[in-house]
Amino acid sequence: MKFLVHMDVNLPVDMPAEQAAELKATEKAYSQELQRSGKWPEIWRVVGEYANWSVFDVETNDELHDLLQNLPLFPYMDITVVPLAKHPSDVK
Amino acid sequence: MKFLVHMDVNLPVDMPAEQAAELKATEKAYSQELQRSGKWPEIWRVVGEYANWSVFDVETNDELHDLLQNLPLFPYMDITVVPLAKHPSDVK
Amino acid sequence: MKFLVHMDVNLPVDMPAEQAAELKATEKAYSQELQRSGKWPEIWRVVGEYANWSVFDVETNDELHDLLQNLPLFPYMDITVVPLAKHPSDVK
Amino acid sequence: MKFLVHMDVNLPVDMPAEQAAELKATEKAYSQELQRSGKWPEIWRVVGEYANWSVFDVETNDELHDLLQNLPLFPYMDITVVPLAKHPSDVK
Amino acid sequence: MKFLVHMDVNLPVDMPAEQAAELKATEKAYSQELQRSGKWPEIWRVVGEYANWSVFDVETNDELHDLLQNLPLFPYMDITVVPLAKHPSDVK
Amino acid sequence: MKFLVHMDVNLPVDMPAEQAAELKATEKAYSQELQRSGKWPEIWRVVGEYANWSVFDVETNDELHDLLQNLPLFPYMDITVVPLAKHPSDVK
Amino acid sequence: MKFLVHMDVNLPVDMPAEQAAELKATEKAYSQELQRSGKWPEIWRVVGEYANWSVFDVETNDELHDLLQNLPLFPYMDITVVPLAKHPSDVK
Amino acid sequence: MKFLVHMDVNLPVDMPAEQAAELKATEKAYSQELQRSGKWPEIWRVVGEYANWSVFDVETNDELHDLLQNLPLFPYMDITVVPLAKHPSDVK
Amino acid sequence: MKFLVHMDVNLPVDMPAEQAAELKATEKAYSQELQRSGKWPEIWRVVGEYANWSVFDVETNDELHDLLQNLPLFPYMDITVVPLAKHPSDVK
Amino acid sequence: MKFLVHMDVNLPVDMPAEQAAELKATEKAYSQELQRSGKWPEIWRVVGEYANWSVFDVETNDELHDLLQNLPLFPYMDITVVPLAKHPSDVK
Repeated sequence: MKFLVHMDVNLPVDMPAEQAAELKATEKAYSQELQRSGKWPEIWRVVGEYANWSVFDVETNDELHDLLQNLPLFPYMDITVVPLAKHPSDVK
Repeated sequence: MKFLVHMDVNLPVDMPAEQAAELKATEKAYSQELQRSGKWPEIWRVVGEYANWSVFDVETNDELHDLLQNLPLFPYMDITVVPLAKHPSDVK
Repeated sequence: MKFLVHMDVNLPVDMPAEQAAELKATEKAYSQELQRSGKWPEIWRVVGEYANWSVFDVETNDELHDLLQNLPLFPYMDITVVPLAKHPSDVK
Repeated sequence: MKFLVHMDVNLPVDMPAEQAAELKATEKAYSQELQRSGKWPEIWRVVGEYANWSVFDVETNDELHDLLQNLPLFPYMDITVVPLAKHPSDVK
Repeated sequence: MKFLVHMDVNLPVDMPAEQAAELKATEKAYSQELQRSGKWPEIWRVVGEYANWSVFDVETNDELHDLLQNLPLFPYMDITVVPLAKHPSDVK
Repeated sequence: MKFLVHMDVNLPVDMPAEQAAELKATEKAYSQELQRSGKWPEIWRVVGEYANWSVFDVETNDELHDLLQNLPLFPYMDITVVPLAKHPSDVK
Repeated sequence: MKFLVHMDVNLPVDMPAEQAAELKATEKAYSQELQRSGKWPEIWRVVGEYANWSVFDVETNDELHDLLQNLPLFPYMDITVVPLAKHPSDVK
Repeated sequence: MKFLVHMDVNLPVDMPAEQAAELKATEKAYSQELQRSGKWPEIWRVVGEYANWSVFDVETNDELHDLLQNLPLFPYMDITVVPLAKHPSDVK
Repeated sequence: MKFLVHMDVNLPVDMPAEQAAELKATEKAYSQELQRSGKWPEIWRVVGEYANWSVFDVETNDELHDLLQNLPLFPYMDITVVPLAKHPSDVK
Repeated sequence: MKFLVHMDVNLPVDMPAEQAAELKATEKAYSQELQRSGKWPEIWRVVGEYANWSVFDVETNDELHDLLQNLPLFPYMDITVVPLAKHPSDVK
């Protein structure tokens, strides 16, 4: 079941550089693990913004919420979730 | 070069059923041809709406505009285009 | 899997009364059938508006889209869908 | 008398973890007490957000305001209240 | 129980003058009857707009919805309802 | 001359409790004095929010601004002012 | 007493040219009469729009509403009214 | 003096094809004449929309309004105007 | 050349009273000097807000930006600029 | 390939003057280098705001994102990117 997810990151400008670097490293590891598992099949950077549009592929709403609230950057992000259905013109 | 595109369709409620059916058939054919060519790799229906989120893969902005303004439903759609870049955490 | 759904109805003010009455009767029958099946457990009128907030309980996004786009009033409605997850404080 | 209520929580990112944990525990206890009393029959997590949509069942507007402003997280939430009426298609 | 209600009227510009006059007369009679009954204690015109802010005093949400949806101008209005509670500084 | 006024209060979450209590007490006294003078005939709490909708009755715009900017909570509020006129259906 | 007023004109694109011309002529005469009386001291065109920002100088809210709702273009305009007070830095 | 101008075109979907073609031809001629005169130095299509962002170079606000309201498509466009100043980092 | 300018002031609530007083005094002097020079012909307080609507009369966009960015309160204000043209109904 | 870019700068009001000056100097040097390279052909100040509208000319979305996220002021800016295509009326 696919969901389009928008994540907008707002780190406090006064967060120590080291803490920010660590947070981002943990976030990256977590994201890549989910990508490799097939749960997070697409992630794109929005040009000019510290934000991404992603596609998630999960079994239930509960599973999606779980994955998202465990993002290391979760407390610093505004997240929007769009449930997707198969499009009748889709050739796949 | 990837772009995320949102298309929101607003057919006049008084459009004759036959005309609507023909428009949608032409749109479907046009969309599927582009999907098969690789220019329009993803299309999803937004749950509960006559709208879709799609991914386009093109060489230039001009090419993308060309593809979009030739959509048979173009005069009846509100379209939003988000330019995408590679995300540093993307494993692909 | 629960979804909160907002439906805002905009019938053209010049729709013939008979056509409107028929549409509403079909809508009511369709809604009540889904309510009885357990797919549409809650429906409330928004005070002062020709709109409702509803809860749907479905297996997949595709199923929800299917139910919604078959609403007889679908061409006259703006629909918004909010995916819901279990709340950690929920006592049920 | 039913009301749909949206609560969006914004804890300061620099709130000490212990204080946050305590606040959340008090909030949970308060919420569960009201749920058990029948005043707060539904609570759902919004997927991807630190927010909930809830249904309250109260006698008056004053009672609802009272319940809401006594939420331990009240100073950190944006709350929106939608008054609900019985829907003519409701089968219950 | 008090509610603040905003009503914004949008008559089609091509509605025949006679029909508009009749609608407005029926609306006025209906409004004045409710005002005299105490259900609609306040009504003000918004300066520069074909709109009003009103106060309603009713027993339940259902009663309020009933009063509003029976407004002769209901199909031509956008209505917003704000539930009110007693203010702790109110001297009355 | 009537004005509908919306006041939305945003006290900093880290304001010392004592300072907040004192501010609110001064605000209450000021508000009640104006209510008793007839300048501030109505004040209602918005259900679920730290906000109020009020009616002021003043001679001029200047007088209204004066009353509002002297509110002890003025630096912490977002205020919106709607000028009101007599409604042609008003029975009073 | 000064008010800043924004008027946004939306004539139907299919209004017969003659009718539009007559409406505009009546509007112009009405506006110029009010300007000469001192009630409407300023009127500016918004660059690129069929809209104006104006200043009105009236005794009461009721008088302002009366002047505005008698505008020949009133049924075709969205009007916003901002009540103004003397600014403490004003040298006049 | 530079202005950034956004023009969003909304032709009625039922405008006869011939009338639309004629309007667009006149618009094109008018635009190209202004471009050649140096008054309208830049015009870009917004990807996916029937809209453009343009730069105008004029002596006064009055001149700009004059140029814009004489656009053949003016009655069908929403126009937004942003006044521009020289940027301190501009190398030109 | 006239421009309508909206200035919305947001002083940090924790700015020391003395610093705020000094800033406001400098702002007042600067504003009054420009008013006397004829560059800033009108300034009004928005009722209920720490904001003003003003009219500026300048030769160029560059001159206007210069005047505005030298406002002592500039770092604490949100400013919106509306370019104005002569209105065809203006009697002056 | 052209993009219209809007950059809105929000420096914290309590940033030390020296740090701000250094940041702005680095930003200016970076911007001018890109302007001279032809990648950033236009930059304009928005009148009354600490913001700019710019035109970028790049080969790909990735290149544009790279240029933007390396702006020294990037952490303090809200950036919006509009992809542009050749306009059919463009005479160049």
